[in-house]
Amino acid sequence: MLTIYNTLTKKKESFKPLNPPFVGIYVCGPTVYDDPHLGHAKSYVSFDIIVRFLRASGYRVRYVQNITDVGHLLGETNEGEDRILKKAQLEHLEPVEIAQKYERHYFRDMDALNLERPDISSRATGHIPEMIELIQVLLDKGYAYEVHGNIYFEVSTFSEYGKLSGRKVEDMISGTRIDAMSEKRHPADFALWKKADPEHLMQWNSPWGKGFPGWHLECSVMAQKYLGETIDIHGGGLDNQFPHHECEIAQSEAANGKPFVRYFMHNNMVTLNSQKMSKSLGNFITLTDLFDRYGPMTVRFFILQGHYRSPQDFSDTALEAASKGFNKLRDTVINLKKHVDDGYKSEKQVSGQCAVFRTQFFDAMNNDFSTATALSVLFDLSRFANSAMSGDDLESINYALALFEELGEEILGLQFAKQGDRVEDSAEDALMEIIISMRQKVRAEKNWKEADRIRDLLAVKGISILDGVEGSTWKKAVKN
Amino acid sequence: MLTIYNTLTKKKESFKPLNPPFVGIYVCGPTVYDDPHLGHAKSYVSFDIIVRFLRASGYRVRYVQNITDVGHLLGETNEGEDRILKKAQLEHLEPVEIAQKYERHYFRDMDALNLERPDISSRATGHIPEMIELIQVLLDKGYAYEVHGNIYFEVSTFSEYGKLSGRKVEDMISGTRIDAMSEKRHPADFALWKKADPEHLMQWNSPWGKGFPGWHLECSVMAQKYLGETIDIHGGGLDNQFPHHECEIAQSEAANGKPFVRYFMHNNMVTLNSQKMSKSLGNFITLTDLFDRYGPMTVRFFILQGHYRSPQDFSDTALEAASKGFNKLRDTVINLKKHVDDGYKSEKQVSGQCAVFRTQFFDAMNNDFSTATALSVLFDLSRFANSAMSGDDLESINYALALFEELGEEILGLQFAKQGDRVEDSAEDALMEIIISMRQKVRAEKNWKEADRIRDLLAVKGISILDGVEGSTWKKAVKN
Repeated sequence: MLTIYNTLTKKKESFKPLNPPFVGIYVCGPTVYDDPHLGHAKSYVSFDIIVRFLRASGYRVRYVQNITDVGHLLGETNEGEDRILKKAQLEHLEPVEIAQKYERHYFRDMDALNLERPDISSRATGHIPEMIELIQVLLDKGYAYEVHGNIYFEVSTFSEYGKLSGRKVEDMISGTRIDAMSEKRHPADFALWKKADPEHLMQWNSPWGKGFPGWHLECSVMAQKYLGETIDIHGGGLDNQFPHHECEIAQSEAANGKPFVRYFMHNNMVTLNSQKMSKSLGNFITLTDLFDRYGPMTVRFFILQGHYRSPQDFSDTALEAASKGFNKLRDTVINLKKHVDDGYKSEKQVSGQCAVFRTQFFDAMNNDFSTATALSVLFDLSRFANSAMSGDDLESINYALALFEELGEEILGLQFAKQGDRVEDSAEDALMEIIISMRQKVRAEKNWKEADRIRDLLAVKGISILDGVEGSTWKKAVKN
Repeated sequence: MLTIYNTLTKKKESFKPLNPPFVGIYVCGPTVYDDPHLGHAKSYVSFDIIVRFLRASGYRVRYVQNITDVGHLLGETNEGEDRILKKAQLEHLEPVEIAQKYERHYFRDMDALNLERPDISSRATGHIPEMIELIQVLLDKGYAYEVHGNIYFEVSTFSEYGKLSGRKVEDMISGTRIDAMSEKRHPADFALWKKADPEHLMQWNSPWGKGFPGWHLECSVMAQKYLGETIDIHGGGLDNQFPHHECEIAQSEAANGKPFVRYFMHNNMVTLNSQKMSKSLGNFITLTDLFDRYGPMTVRFFILQGHYRSPQDFSDTALEAASKGFNKLRDTVINLKKHVDDGYKSEKQVSGQCAVFRTQFFDAMNNDFSTATALSVLFDLSRFANSAMSGDDLESINYALALFEELGEEILGLQFAKQGDRVEDSAEDALMEIIISMRQKVRAEKNWKEADRIRDLLAVKGISILDGVEGSTWKKAVKN
């Protein structure tokens, strides 16, 4: 039975979706104005595994993620400069070009991490009419007010404001910079619609003049449009809990008079020297850089080694350890593939010790997605598999590979077989086999000079040869 | 000087953009409800080359393409069933899921064909407010009328209706099925906005009730939003000339009182046994299938062999001929790369015979993009290059490669070097180099048995070795 830590109630709860076996999950997606960094990977890998595990558990999941291509302003109450617009000015491009460019980079990096695409990736600019309608409802119901073409949500009208983050409206004044010139009734009131200057590049007509939507609004609108007024799971980074998710709750529940979310899930942050990694702090590492150094599967493995609700400190040591760990499992899987039956077919029916591993794995995942424990089961399985291979225990070999495929590849999304490109591997394997066999002959003839020449040529290509008593093996210094 | 056949005037004209060096080009993109087929490739490869050539000629091009994800109805006056909605019902998915799925397939196939992405790929659903505004303008100016929540453009109010296709409004009755129940004032009037049934999955609020936009509308709106009221080039398939482009002209010019398009360009169709290849006729070949059989570069080459304004008949014979032609050029380029100077750097300054080839190529392309003639120049260049290699004429070798890179790769978008994956190639090349060198030693020792063993091992992997007097070369039997 799956239990989930619900940030709304601050405790682990049994997971009961509204209309089983259907599960609707909404996860806050990226604001597409810059390249994805490790913090994004932590969030989206975490929710990818959650969705994969729900599916493996028999749920029929609809996974919605937004793409913020307008309105994500700087500053806590969403009143600063638009991030995409600012970048557009920097790069001398149209806002839409910036958004499309970085949306492409986002999917490029998420694809490399082997994330399943959301069923729906919806863009804020594709939902302007729906946002205007929601604002109108909030105005009509007295939860929002207009000042000079700007519309604000009045937090004091929604008595439950603060229930997610635990903040109280009355305490918020002290935490907010007091702006004597502010037109807002309360410093914590947040923008639903901002009036646009004539030169503003992204603006739409509305009943209140030309303007653009506030950032929080899009998530209320898209979650409702694609998943209904009450959704099962809402996910996002811990840094979105306040104000973003708190504002979403206020908007949706004020408008619909129904609970917005049954289970709120927040992933913790990636830190660098214990400081949060983020674009605004400028201490981020882009995924492109990381992939160059370690490969996407090592990054994925690194994230799985932590728990989604725990902060995770980035360091080269940690990534190198992740690389070793991943390669250990990978080597086992590749060996298993060489050892299995000719008629091998991946099956989910396993028995004996493998059935025990499977139960342990599901127990770990059912316990609020304890991926680190789930990985430790895979290491136990790896030891078991290696001894099965030494003992030529074909049944165990077949079961072990089936488990690696189901638990490791399907649920945890680790691509064991793929290293760089699949095609490259197979060509490389075949050619290396030939080279090794040729070099064996040379060594048999005690032609050490030629054997060394070959070894050196390969070394230049990053391939090392290890000569043992039973023959030579090779290894490539590559990123996985 | 570039001349373009302008479908508006039915003649070749000198190309003069409105604000040189800037060129705005809008090309009708796909309706994302099914997999792309060869007809799409013909259209988008043609305009890709047009954009590439404009850029190579010094123009600064903004290339906009729409993605139709709502409102493309069946039937000539845009009043049948919505294509995406119909497919959504078939696949038991939401319309937005259908649109996103096939948009991804579209870009997957276009990327494989080595198309440069448009600067802006704009979705119809992202422009609903702007479409509603344009309808309002047309209503206010008396070009449109409302009946029961539907808005129609009244073609008789726009005296120039028919100027692109040459059709006359008065003749259109006979060509259109007379529907006694029709609420339209004239059978040729077309829908700007359609009222939606309550169960319709794609609908938005409007001043005229809930509904959705007509297909023609999005192109008028997006062209104007991203390229201004008058655009330099509007492209699309010949089958879009009427009614789609005719309707676009009517909408835009009626609303703005300005010419909409300076140069209209239409690509002709791909035929199968002389019948147009299209989804509605059910005689299409998907690009995935074609790529499996011939590889994307052969498909691209096939399209280049025709002229964009000529129909092109698909047959296996034609594709096999294209494959041969492409491989001929490719082999020359690969050989040139082995022969060039160590310090080789691609330059656009060539002289002698190569300068003549370059002029011939540009002349062909300047003549309404005569790609077939341009290709014939590349075959002349290939012969020239081969004789330069025989004669070890290093300067000509360098120039020839530079020309292949500029004219073949950059302008015509042919990927000579890439065969399968670039990464695979480099690893394979390096290992093959080692194998060949080892085998050379074996042959020097007259150890024919081992040399043959190696050749046989490689043959199993699809690699053939050719032993010549000056050493051995290798070749892989793959699709390009």
